[in-house]
Amino acid sequence: MSGELIFGIHAVESALTHDPKNIIELYIEIDSQNARLRELSERARDAGVKPHARDRAALDRMTGGARHQGAVARYRAPPPRAESELYALVEKEERNALLLVLDGVTDPHNLGACLRSAEAAGATAVVVPKDKAAGITPTVRRASAGAADRVAFFAVTNLARTLKALKDRGVWLVGLAGDAEQDFYSLDLKGSTAIVMGSEGEGMRRLTRESCDYVVRIPMRGDIESLNVSVATGVAMFEVLRQRGANP
Amino acid sequence: MSGELIFGIHAVESALTHDPKNIIELYIEIDSQNARLRELSERARDAGVKPHARDRAALDRMTGGARHQGAVARYRAPPPRAESELYALVEKEERNALLLVLDGVTDPHNLGACLRSAEAAGATAVVVPKDKAAGITPTVRRASAGAADRVAFFAVTNLARTLKALKDRGVWLVGLAGDAEQDFYSLDLKGSTAIVMGSEGEGMRRLTRESCDYVVRIPMRGDIESLNVSVATGVAMFEVLRQRGANP
Repeated sequence: MSGELIFGIHAVESALTHDPKNIIELYIEIDSQNARLRELSERARDAGVKPHARDRAALDRMTGGARHQGAVARYRAPPPRAESELYALVEKEERNALLLVLDGVTDPHNLGACLRSAEAAGATAVVVPKDKAAGITPTVRRASAGAADRVAFFAVTNLARTLKALKDRGVWLVGLAGDAEQDFYSLDLKGSTAIVMGSEGEGMRRLTRESCDYVVRIPMRGDIESLNVSVATGVAMFEVLRQRGANP
Repeated sequence: MSGELIFGIHAVESALTHDPKNIIELYIEIDSQNARLRELSERARDAGVKPHARDRAALDRMTGGARHQGAVARYRAPPPRAESELYALVEKEERNALLLVLDGVTDPHNLGACLRSAEAAGATAVVVPKDKAAGITPTVRRASAGAADRVAFFAVTNLARTLKALKDRGVWLVGLAGDAEQDFYSLDLKGSTAIVMGSEGEGMRRLTRESCDYVVRIPMRGDIESLNVSVATGVAMFEVLRQRGANP
């Protein structure tokens, strides 16, 4: 069967709301007492998608045992975005672009959680290197609570080159690292900004780090590894919003 | 066998560093190529704990199939703390206490992630209602990367009464809710503060919400549910640190 699998109430709900025409098939657990599943079926019908009833075991088989909460869909995922679109988005935002660059976040739960934080902060785009990051898998989609399909996501071939192209368009590159000297809160983040995060264990790769205009740390009390990458992402991106006085 | 199970490299490492005398038994996966496991064995010997070699299947059986990364221990968890200790900690901090109150965070991964964020922010204590929250289970411990045993954790019988007692000791109670009117960033957070979070789906219970001095929202761009509770916790607690100019 064609299409990618999406599952979990949040993720399916999000696809129904934002992109129902690309839902190829929808399966809902039969005889479930869960009111949210009944709502989901109604919502699907309203959106012109027919829900098919399946028992739990059939859904379990579809997801290979991953937690689906009674909602599974086959979804025609959006095609990968061209890098030129990234630069167009940045230019459209003028001095208010807010990007998230994830260099080597390979854990799908962490990637999903970062996409969720990025969406909540209204990120212009999320950029990852094609070869060093988890792609948008069903697990990423679920962990992102649907944000994976709403946020502008770019998997780029050469991250250092993309970072340079962003810099040329007036984006400040701010890398976060536990071993940095400079305090994150000392920065003026009002212009276009990209928050650059490394992997939890290893941090940014050398070339990525060298591309940054600033490498800073969030002052913390616990040890370096004590902040999850999606939490650090949230802390950094919401500080940008705070400084901009963005109150939507 | 007595003791609680802890597993995962981070969690076992943390117990070895902070509380080796309460490790009853330590099991490390035999023939593993993982350098971090070898380091862990050395560290255990240095701390006077003898690591026992076990094959992966034996460790899988111990943890009931949960992801242990080759490191499992039986651990004598600290006894529950008395509420009087909470008030003593708050008084000791004078005007700088920073508390996290979790009302109804029942998912163990979320609780663990919140404890991790709280520790990174140097929280004085974390308070949960005894009947409405996940306790410190092995899953919580693992999700917290060991913070569960380092942060001062209080499960209290009557949350509303505890909140009142904290207020009587000069702690400002700041509740976060997606439907609040007031902007979180409008608050002066320099005095003793408790950040009060509800569950992801339901928010705070009515009595808890009514106990708060302020109920505020973090302005965001996505929908209300778009921020994970541990990320929102991180954003809120690090804003307190920022305002205090705490640069450890």
